[in-house]
Amino acid sequence: MIGSRLLYMVTLVLGLNSFLIGQEHPNLLLTAEGVSRIKDECCPRLYQEVLDKAILEFASVLEAPMEVPIPKDMAGGYSHETHKRNYGLMRTAGMLFQITGEEKYGNYVKDMLFKYVELYPRIDKHPSRKSYSPGKLFWQCLNDANWLMYTAQAYDAIYHFLSLAERRTIEEELLIPYADFISIENPKFFNRIHNHSTWGNAAVGMIGLALNNKELIQRALYGLEIKKDISLEKDNDGGLIYDGDRAIAGFFAQIDYAFSPDGYYEEGPYYHRYAMLPFMVFAQGLNHHMPELKIFEYRGGLLIKAVKTMLAQTDSKGEFFPINDAQKGMSIAAGSVVTAVNIAYANSRDKEFLLAAQLQNKVLLDQSGFEISKALENISIAGLQRSSTEMKDGKDGNKGGLGVLRWGGGSEEFNVVYKYTSQGLGHGHFDKLSYSIYDGPTEVLQDYGAARWVNIDQKAGGRYLDENQTWAKQTVAHNALVMDQKSHFDGIYDVAKSGYSIPIYFNAANRDLQIISAKDTMAYKNHDLERLVVLWKDDEFDKPIVIDIVRAFGEEAHDFDLPLHFAGQFLKADFKYQSNDPEILGDSHGYQHIYQEAVAKIENPSISMTWLKDQKMYTLTTKSEINDEVILARIGANDHEFNLRRDAFMIHRKSKAINPSFISVIESHGSYNPVTEIPHQPYGKIKSIESILESVEYSVFDLIDVDNNKWRVCINHYNGESNAIHKIEIPDGHKISWTGPITINKLKN
Amino acid sequence: MIGSRLLYMVTLVLGLNSFLIGQEHPNLLLTAEGVSRIKDECCPRLYQEVLDKAILEFASVLEAPMEVPIPKDMAGGYSHETHKRNYGLMRTAGMLFQITGEEKYGNYVKDMLFKYVELYPRIDKHPSRKSYSPGKLFWQCLNDANWLMYTAQAYDAIYHFLSLAERRTIEEELLIPYADFISIENPKFFNRIHNHSTWGNAAVGMIGLALNNKELIQRALYGLEIKKDISLEKDNDGGLIYDGDRAIAGFFAQIDYAFSPDGYYEEGPYYHRYAMLPFMVFAQGLNHHMPELKIFEYRGGLLIKAVKTMLAQTDSKGEFFPINDAQKGMSIAAGSVVTAVNIAYANSRDKEFLLAAQLQNKVLLDQSGFEISKALENISIAGLQRSSTEMKDGKDGNKGGLGVLRWGGGSEEFNVVYKYTSQGLGHGHFDKLSYSIYDGPTEVLQDYGAARWVNIDQKAGGRYLDENQTWAKQTVAHNALVMDQKSHFDGIYDVAKSGYSIPIYFNAANRDLQIISAKDTMAYKNHDLERLVVLWKDDEFDKPIVIDIVRAFGEEAHDFDLPLHFAGQFLKADFKYQSNDPEILGDSHGYQHIYQEAVAKIENPSISMTWLKDQKMYTLTTKSEINDEVILARIGANDHEFNLRRDAFMIHRKSKAINPSFISVIESHGSYNPVTEIPHQPYGKIKSIESILESVEYSVFDLIDVDNNKWRVCINHYNGESNAIHKIEIPDGHKISWTGPITINKLKN
Repeated sequence: MIGSRLLYMVTLVLGLNSFLIGQEHPNLLLTAEGVSRIKDECCPRLYQEVLDKAILEFASVLEAPMEVPIPKDMAGGYSHETHKRNYGLMRTAGMLFQITGEEKYGNYVKDMLFKYVELYPRIDKHPSRKSYSPGKLFWQCLNDANWLMYTAQAYDAIYHFLSLAERRTIEEELLIPYADFISIENPKFFNRIHNHSTWGNAAVGMIGLALNNKELIQRALYGLEIKKDISLEKDNDGGLIYDGDRAIAGFFAQIDYAFSPDGYYEEGPYYHRYAMLPFMVFAQGLNHHMPELKIFEYRGGLLIKAVKTMLAQTDSKGEFFPINDAQKGMSIAAGSVVTAVNIAYANSRDKEFLLAAQLQNKVLLDQSGFEISKALENISIAGLQRSSTEMKDGKDGNKGGLGVLRWGGGSEEFNVVYKYTSQGLGHGHFDKLSYSIYDGPTEVLQDYGAARWVNIDQKAGGRYLDENQTWAKQTVAHNALVMDQKSHFDGIYDVAKSGYSIPIYFNAANRDLQIISAKDTMAYKNHDLERLVVLWKDDEFDKPIVIDIVRAFGEEAHDFDLPLHFAGQFLKADFKYQSNDPEILGDSHGYQHIYQEAVAKIENPSISMTWLKDQKMYTLTTKSEINDEVILARIGANDHEFNLRRDAFMIHRKSKAINPSFISVIESHGSYNPVTEIPHQPYGKIKSIESILESVEYSVFDLIDVDNNKWRVCINHYNGESNAIHKIEIPDGHKISWTGPITINKLKN
Repeated sequence: MIGSRLLYMVTLVLGLNSFLIGQEHPNLLLTAEGVSRIKDECCPRLYQEVLDKAILEFASVLEAPMEVPIPKDMAGGYSHETHKRNYGLMRTAGMLFQITGEEKYGNYVKDMLFKYVELYPRIDKHPSRKSYSPGKLFWQCLNDANWLMYTAQAYDAIYHFLSLAERRTIEEELLIPYADFISIENPKFFNRIHNHSTWGNAAVGMIGLALNNKELIQRALYGLEIKKDISLEKDNDGGLIYDGDRAIAGFFAQIDYAFSPDGYYEEGPYYHRYAMLPFMVFAQGLNHHMPELKIFEYRGGLLIKAVKTMLAQTDSKGEFFPINDAQKGMSIAAGSVVTAVNIAYANSRDKEFLLAAQLQNKVLLDQSGFEISKALENISIAGLQRSSTEMKDGKDGNKGGLGVLRWGGGSEEFNVVYKYTSQGLGHGHFDKLSYSIYDGPTEVLQDYGAARWVNIDQKAGGRYLDENQTWAKQTVAHNALVMDQKSHFDGIYDVAKSGYSIPIYFNAANRDLQIISAKDTMAYKNHDLERLVVLWKDDEFDKPIVIDIVRAFGEEAHDFDLPLHFAGQFLKADFKYQSNDPEILGDSHGYQHIYQEAVAKIENPSISMTWLKDQKMYTLTTKSEINDEVILARIGANDHEFNLRRDAFMIHRKSKAINPSFISVIESHGSYNPVTEIPHQPYGKIKSIESILESVEYSVFDLIDVDNNKWRVCINHYNGESNAIHKIEIPDGHKISWTGPITINKLKN
């Protein structure tokens, strides 16, 4: 990788010479050519909508007095929100100036820039000192970087509308000093490998491009050259500035370090969505300005890949899988994702981005928005379905991964999300080998997400809640195996941060029978965990069946809990349970937040239970052993401030077990309509599981349906090759053989 | 009323003479004239959709073998569902035959009728004996009545397509005997005042109309003449057959007794929706066949009024208010409501029905469906808003009522539903003076509805659950005042059934300040209850504010609980509370199902708390007294089968209080977007309530906002006249005066 960066540095130096021969404007997200195309071919529907909306908004904006207050407030407060609104308006006005040619928009930007020229020398650092790097207009440099990035675009758009003297004033009294402020004066903000720094790099870089300022571009791409300073080494999110003795900083370094080779972002999609914007915006500016840099081809086309990977981590309605710290409901509707999708499409013409844009149903006002809007009208994506995909984690792609199995498409798309990643930095959860299921928009098995109500002041100011640590991060809060009622890595981040799981195989070659196998050797001392997740679609079932095998290997007997977060209305179980007044299950590792509402001592070799969620019915059928317990549980104990959702779940418990195995089937079978009052298939078809053979290498078992039909499932746990041939003898003496990691066959009665 | 019925009887006798001079076909829901209009003016969009869908459905129906199985199964089983499907198909085929003129549809009906001609003499009563009146094709006569009503329409449609001999066979061997079976042979089914009997009457009547059979029509309109027989007096729903010595039965009697003069259906909208269909279908048939009967004008146009009243009991998305036993989610999308709306519109041309039809977005295949579909395209209803309305309960309109206050329209419509009805027969709840609030589709304060998962087999076969009695019907399950932790009427139906509340006044003359006052003198011995509900919209608030005053009058001190079922995510309170492990609040009257999760001893004269529901924020501010308690509670104790929803609520408790009063304000202020992560107005504006004067007749208090602005609220509890002038002196010696039941004025600082 170092080699490739050096190569790019050479390219850049050559590129810089082009500065000497003058520069076009606009040339960031808009180019002269792009603007002319927009004017000539206006307008496809979505683009027309965003254009109309912007023009309408400005009808009143231009009437209102321009407000550029003295910085004072935190996020949510008047000065913060006004400056935030201002940079958005400036950028929009710049674009409208280019597209419509109307001077009123150019004047708006100019006037506002001069108001900031006036303000800037009068203000010191923001009076609030709650950030490690307070900004000027805002309480943290991060927001100032936003301001600069947007303002760079506005300035670029009206460049030729300004006199030379005006440009000099704006550049020398506002833009350059401000870019220096967030970089040279704030190295801890600017010079890390961190999403904050990406914003910083991109902001400085965009100003550099807009001003044709070689030094700023250089700084943005390669960081500050500063000596190793221990006090900068680590920030509160764990981002490093040095790799050994070598300073790692700047935009290229962010691309190198923030993503895995597959474009997976270590912290997961919720933060990926947030971080993606500066990468794409600056890259687009670079690509227009210095096309010879081929930034979208850097690191194997990493940036485009990263957008695809981000989109791959969404459900059928475009909401991000809430793995790690994440607020549920965050989706591709977010502005940053619209930006990323538009720019990624403009620079790749990959149809997958059109699927996302269709769901987003909105586009940017720039030329990438115009292009994707046109494409949506001219290119058919009907019937296009998203693929299953595995995304490897880790800078070099060798620290686990995330697998997503998909079936069907559109609003009915079925997703199985299996997580065997690394820890995910400070936002990671202790949830090795956990998984979740989505049946269209329905979370069949949920990931709780973060215990946080983002920006809702009543809940600890909208910050992470204590329960994020005590509940949401803990293993039992996930569909993940818990040993001895202790979280993975004992719930200690400093132990977990270097841990990661190991992909065994991922085979989605046959869309009707897909399988992922992975293991973890680090979460528990002296114990290996394995999980294998199967998505199986058979004509006899309306929807895919999920098969889930969890195993633990170790020498001594331990207690194992496998939680299943169905978070719906329990309907019925085929085992007897004893309900009780809520009892708190433990005092640590998340158990202090669990109420036991009922418990069952299992007496059968297979059990099942059905629940209702979003007016659909689901049945879990699982292999059991005598003395297993099932705990019907609910979240909410010791939740003194009512911070947690009171969701229901169950725990399958095996006490004092050696090498336990859990084999489960989750069937999505029924639905209910409260208007017609007709339930469709309220009962699952599969009623039990019968184990035939379980060895380290193989699992063979039968799924038995209500009419006593049997499907035999044969699995090899370690060999995912589609053409590998397996031959084994089962206990009744029969020999069976099959090809590939898994086969499922209906047995003849 | 007797007089009016006699008058109608005379009219009918005259009408019957028209039989002698021959009859047109079709003449039930379709007429020759209507069919010709459909053919000439086809087709408005919604009608075209339903027509296309029917033709498409029959493309495969006509290919498939016709199945007419021996009756055997209960609802959900093969024979039941097949016969049910068959009558629907016959009716549709009959309509398609008329509209398209294609013989294949006529042949389909004919062939199927002859299959039933064959089957009918071979079957006895249905083998299942789970109903008080087993049918022939179905387990209960009710379904057989459905079959007859639909089949009458099919037969009528192909009448002229059949030979005289074919008609004679079908009439004499199938239709007449079948009509006799559900009437003469099942008097307990046919001859009551009950929705089942309405179906029976209508079915026999429709056969009578289709066959021009005077005797059947007579029987349908006036019931069977049978002697008083004690065993028929009461069914399990409490319907009576005799009023004194006089037999009360037949279609006219149903209209007389099932509704109040305002068209309110005693059991509430959930059952109203179900019962309305046979009324409207038979009435439409009668009106086409015997227009001289003026059935839609009977009892002051009661039937049309009843449809309006039914629709008035829905929220902005068309879901019925779940008062009494009701399954949430039941809505005007139900087929029976589409039928009622279409027929009501065709016979009234009232625009209000177009609002409903627009929301339903579907119409009938008959000519009423055609008419309303045309009207939706030709008549503008943009901006039309629904009115606030009061519906008096009781056959003579003197047993309480239901008030609905509305503000705004469309999907943002705000509804306050105040219930001061009679008990609602066996499906009633013990919830005198309870109320609920809807902010668009959001239940701000919920009515729990019934504890029942209709037709979901896993939950007690889909029948009413035990918890319906032990929880859902109890007073504490509602937003209603509870005295001494005992339900109204001690929770005893036989005591409650003759009880009803008393409307004091209803004033919605000013849409920005609407008020209802009502009282109850029967729910508790020696105590009167009063509640006054106000909907107030001021420009300084985004949405309406609800003011709620609850008072109790009696001589001794008692304990009072005012529950508030917010059923959302508690965000924050301005009082200190102590959370605890769930404690069960009592052992009867619903309290056995309540967990206390936290409790607060109140030390302030005013308290407030905020919750989140459907990403919107609401704040309750309520007057309090020292030693009041607030219990933060949750439903779910002693719910051994997980039948109940674990919804959160709160209880404001005043112990050993004499003549307590609760003054509360519910402010709908905020919203949250998980994609932008921006909360809009997360805090309520009103922060406290200050009581100025409370007398029996008057309440004067101030609402104080976060900026210490004050709004003074002056209310007279008993005089609702808009022009009544009130003059009082408040404790500080000031004299104040206002006009009307309520005034709210912002005080000058």
